[in-house]
Amino acid sequence: MCVPLWPLHKVFGIRKIVVSTYQSASGAGAKAMRELEEQCRDFAADKELKAEVFPYQIAFNVFSHNSAVEENGFNGEENKMVEETKKMFHEPGLEIVPMCVRVPVLRAHSESIYIETEKEISPDKARKLLREAPGVIVVDDVKKGYFPMPIEANGKLEVLVGRIRQTGSKKSLALFVAGDQLLKGAAWNAVQIAEELILS
Amino acid sequence: MCVPLWPLHKVFGIRKIVVSTYQSASGAGAKAMRELEEQCRDFAADKELKAEVFPYQIAFNVFSHNSAVEENGFNGEENKMVEETKKMFHEPGLEIVPMCVRVPVLRAHSESIYIETEKEISPDKARKLLREAPGVIVVDDVKKGYFPMPIEANGKLEVLVGRIRQTGSKKSLALFVAGDQLLKGAAWNAVQIAEELILS
Repeated sequence: MCVPLWPLHKVFGIRKIVVSTYQSASGAGAKAMRELEEQCRDFAADKELKAEVFPYQIAFNVFSHNSAVEENGFNGEENKMVEETKKMFHEPGLEIVPMCVRVPVLRAHSESIYIETEKEISPDKARKLLREAPGVIVVDDVKKGYFPMPIEANGKLEVLVGRIRQTGSKKSLALFVAGDQLLKGAAWNAVQIAEELILS
Repeated sequence: MCVPLWPLHKVFGIRKIVVSTYQSASGAGAKAMRELEEQCRDFAADKELKAEVFPYQIAFNVFSHNSAVEENGFNGEENKMVEETKKMFHEPGLEIVPMCVRVPVLRAHSESIYIETEKEISPDKARKLLREAPGVIVVDDVKKGYFPMPIEANGKLEVLVGRIRQTGSKKSLALFVAGDQLLKGAAWNAVQIAEELILS
């Protein structure tokens, strides 16, 4: 999320983020990926699907991220998103509303993101900035209906971003991203943000 | 979305909705469901996965809803959500920001919903109202990490709702819903809303 939002934040000043995730099995480790594969094989073999790594069946299902819900009603993964983003952006007052959800994808996470900004923003301005931003590939072909997908983000260092569009006011935007979090996890993000901060 | 939001709207006055969907193959018909099953069988048999009904592989993938993107940047499905909700709620000025996404689920759609309200709202107040609301089952067991899932919404007339929590202000709330849209599609929703309007 931070990779495409940071260049937008620097220019337009993001003041609020509402984000829903589509997180792959790989975020829970290799065993979780094998469980999803195994459930698909059991489905094909007409066998009962067994859930051992995840608390619930992951094949043909989605469920709230398996980290525990904490006192503020957010689960551990959601609180991590809020805290890490505030820290990396140096914005303790930034409002972030995350909903973290597992989906039956093997690798690469996706996110549906809505932002509100201080300055007026437009899809064209955002696309132009993102095309020049490090670590981002704009995949936003409206005519072909071709947008970021986790199977295409697999194995890429860049984060794919698309479905960029205005949403009612000139100070809000929606976008959809997909990135291989095994390559672009919190650690690598932090390195990139640190570099950006030093360079800017 | 409208089934659990309508009772909240009547009491707290929803003025904004940001919603991301996790839509199953069934919304695109029986052929699309068979395509997802076939791709899983081909995966198990180590064969190449073929996409014929959907524009892209649906197994182990998520993609922006396959309806065409229209002039305002929203796709057909998203514009339908906006227009139908405004009509059913009799609220032409209601702001709705949808992101419609397909996920590899056979049946039942899920949604991550964020709302802003005119009056102060709390998770407890919302849960109490929703427990008494027609057509809604509250599935919100924080201790067990048990929340709405499409595999459990399958075949149910009710919409499951959970992950209900405050999100920064006393006038905003997040929730997660799952419902069998083959049973609770736009048509049935409209009937229920109409009944509500007559009774209220």
